[in-house]
Amino acid sequence: MKKIVNDPEYVVRDMLEGLIAAHPDTLKQIPETTVVARKDAPIDNKVGIVSGGGSGHEPAHAGYIGDGMLDAAVCGEVFTSPTPDQVLEGIKAADGGAGVFLIIKNYTGDVMNFDMAAEMAEAEGIDVEKVVVNDDVAVEDSASTTGRRGIAGTIFVHKIAGAKAAAGGSLQEVKDIAEKVTGNVRSMGMALTPCTVPAAGEPSFSLNEDEMEIGIGIHGESGIEKKEVTSANEIAEELTNNVLEDIEFNHGDDVALIVNGMGATPEMELYILNKKVNEILVERGLNIYKTLVGNYMTALEMSGCSVTLLKLDEEMKSLLDAESSAPAYNI
Amino acid sequence: MKKIVNDPEYVVRDMLEGLIAAHPDTLKQIPETTVVARKDAPIDNKVGIVSGGGSGHEPAHAGYIGDGMLDAAVCGEVFTSPTPDQVLEGIKAADGGAGVFLIIKNYTGDVMNFDMAAEMAEAEGIDVEKVVVNDDVAVEDSASTTGRRGIAGTIFVHKIAGAKAAAGGSLQEVKDIAEKVTGNVRSMGMALTPCTVPAAGEPSFSLNEDEMEIGIGIHGESGIEKKEVTSANEIAEELTNNVLEDIEFNHGDDVALIVNGMGATPEMELYILNKKVNEILVERGLNIYKTLVGNYMTALEMSGCSVTLLKLDEEMKSLLDAESSAPAYNI
Repeated sequence: MKKIVNDPEYVVRDMLEGLIAAHPDTLKQIPETTVVARKDAPIDNKVGIVSGGGSGHEPAHAGYIGDGMLDAAVCGEVFTSPTPDQVLEGIKAADGGAGVFLIIKNYTGDVMNFDMAAEMAEAEGIDVEKVVVNDDVAVEDSASTTGRRGIAGTIFVHKIAGAKAAAGGSLQEVKDIAEKVTGNVRSMGMALTPCTVPAAGEPSFSLNEDEMEIGIGIHGESGIEKKEVTSANEIAEELTNNVLEDIEFNHGDDVALIVNGMGATPEMELYILNKKVNEILVERGLNIYKTLVGNYMTALEMSGCSVTLLKLDEEMKSLLDAESSAPAYNI
Repeated sequence: MKKIVNDPEYVVRDMLEGLIAAHPDTLKQIPETTVVARKDAPIDNKVGIVSGGGSGHEPAHAGYIGDGMLDAAVCGEVFTSPTPDQVLEGIKAADGGAGVFLIIKNYTGDVMNFDMAAEMAEAEGIDVEKVVVNDDVAVEDSASTTGRRGIAGTIFVHKIAGAKAAAGGSLQEVKDIAEKVTGNVRSMGMALTPCTVPAAGEPSFSLNEDEMEIGIGIHGESGIEKKEVTSANEIAEELTNNVLEDIEFNHGDDVALIVNGMGATPEMELYILNKKVNEILVERGLNIYKTLVGNYMTALEMSGCSVTLLKLDEEMKSLLDAESSAPAYNI
C-alpha cells in the first residue's frame, strides 16, 4: 500500500486537522467530534443543511460546506458510516432554529444512523427532515444497500437544497426541492483500478491489467460486469445511455451534467469523456445547462469515472445558478 | 496502459473539445489551434496574460483562464512544448492593445518557443514581456532545463500577475509583480508512482512497491533520491524544510502555501500532509495567509505531491485576495 499517511488508523483525524488548517476562516471542527461546520454556523433562522457519511470520498462532503450549500458535514471512518452520536452533533451544529435538513446517500448504515440521530434531535426539540439520495442506476440492491446506491448526484442535492435554504426556504420547502432533485437525478460509474482502505492495507477487489468494471460503486462494490477496457467513447456511451434510459427525457429538456473523477483519473481523461457525453446529449436533443468536470465524489485512489444527469426545471436552474462559497463547488 | 482515452495520438485534441463543451459560456478555442482563451478575449486596454506548455498538467493551464487570471493558454502535446506558431496565436488572442505578458515554466523547449513567439509578435507590433518561473528547489539543472524547473509555484504567478492586469496594471507593472513572485516562490515535489504518456504507452520511469522519489519533476524527471516510502509527516518535513532553507524567511512573515496533488493522490492524503506542513510553518513563526490544497499542477496519473511557499508582501496579499472566475482557482 503506497499512501501519504501516518498511522492508517488515524487518517480521518489527521485529514480533518489538515482541512481546518487550510480553511481557518471558514471552517471549524466541533470539538471532540468528526463534524466539520461553517465557522459561522449555526445561521439564525436558516434551515441547516447537513450531510456526511464515510470518509474517502473527498471533497465530499466537507468540501461542500459554505454559504449556499452545507452547514455541516459528519465524517465517518473511511467507507464507514458515522455513528448516530456524531450525526447528532452535526445536526446541533447546524441548527439555527429553523430546522435541519439531512442529505443522506443510500447506504444501510448511513440511513440507519442518520435516522437515529434525527430521532435524538427531535427529542431535543430540533425539527429534522431528510432526503435519501439513490441516483446510481447500475444495481437495484447491493451488499450495503436496500435499493439503489447514492453517488455523485448527491452533489446536485447539496447545491440545490443548500441554495433553497440560503434563499430563506422553510424546512418543508427545502425537503420538497431536494425530493424533486433526487427524483430527477441519475448516475452511473466505472473503474479501471481498485482502491485501498488505509487501515485494511490491501485493495478490496482486483481488476486485471486489461479489465475495467462497469457500474461499480464508490466503495468498489460490484457493478454490472467486468470486461476488457474499451475506448473513452464507448465508456461514455455505456454510462450515458444507461442513465438516459432510466428516466424520461424529452427533446429540449435542460439538463445538468457531472463528469466525475473517482480520485486517480487525470482531468485530461475526464474532459475526453465529456466530449463524447456532450455529443450524445446534443444528439438526443437535450440542452446542457451546466457541466461539472472533476473530482466531486471520489473513492480514495480509485481510477475511474461516473456520469450524472439531472433533469432541470426553472426552479432548479435558478438554485443551481445561485452563488456558493463552498470551495469544492468550483463553477 | 489503463486510460480513458480514444486514439492516444489525439488526446489533446479530444480534451480541448471536452473542455470547451464544459465551459461554452466562458471559454473558446481559437480555430485551427490548440489555444484556449476567454470567450470575451481580447479585453480592450488590459494587459493580456498568456501561459501554457505541454499538456498533462491539468488543470494547468487552461483551468486558470478567467477574469483575474489568464486570458489564454497554449496547449502543447502531452509533456511537449507548444510550437512558436501556436504560442503566437495565443498572444494574438490575448492582445487587447496594452501588450501581452507570458508566464513560462522553465523548460528549455518552452522558453525557446515562447521567446520565438514573442519575437514574432513584436514584429507584428504587439508589445510582449515575460517571466520564467523556476520554483523547484530540488535540482539545479536537469535533462530538460538550464537552471531550476518551473512547477506548482506557477499558479501563484498566474494569480498575482493576472490580478495586477485585471486591476489595470501596465505591462511593466505586471512584469514587475510577476518577477517579485518568482523571486519569492519555492516548491518541491515527490512521487509514489510513475505516469504514462498516452502515445508512449509505457511509464517513463519505475518505482518499486516500497519506494518513492523525492524531488521529482512534473514530467517524472529524476529528483534527488529514491528511497523507502516514509510517513506523511516525514514527507512533509523533507519537502517543507528544503523549501524553507532555500529562501530567507523571518519570524512573522506572511506566506501562501500550495499542497499540490500530482494527479492520482486522494485529497485525504493532501490534507494529512497539510496538517504537518502547517505545524512546521507555525513552529517557524510564519503566518499562513492562504492555503491551497488540491490538484493544481499535475503529472497525468502520477501519485505524489508538492509543497509550494510564497513569501508575501502587502501588494501580493492584496492581489492574491482579488476575485477570480477561473474554475480551477477555487478559493
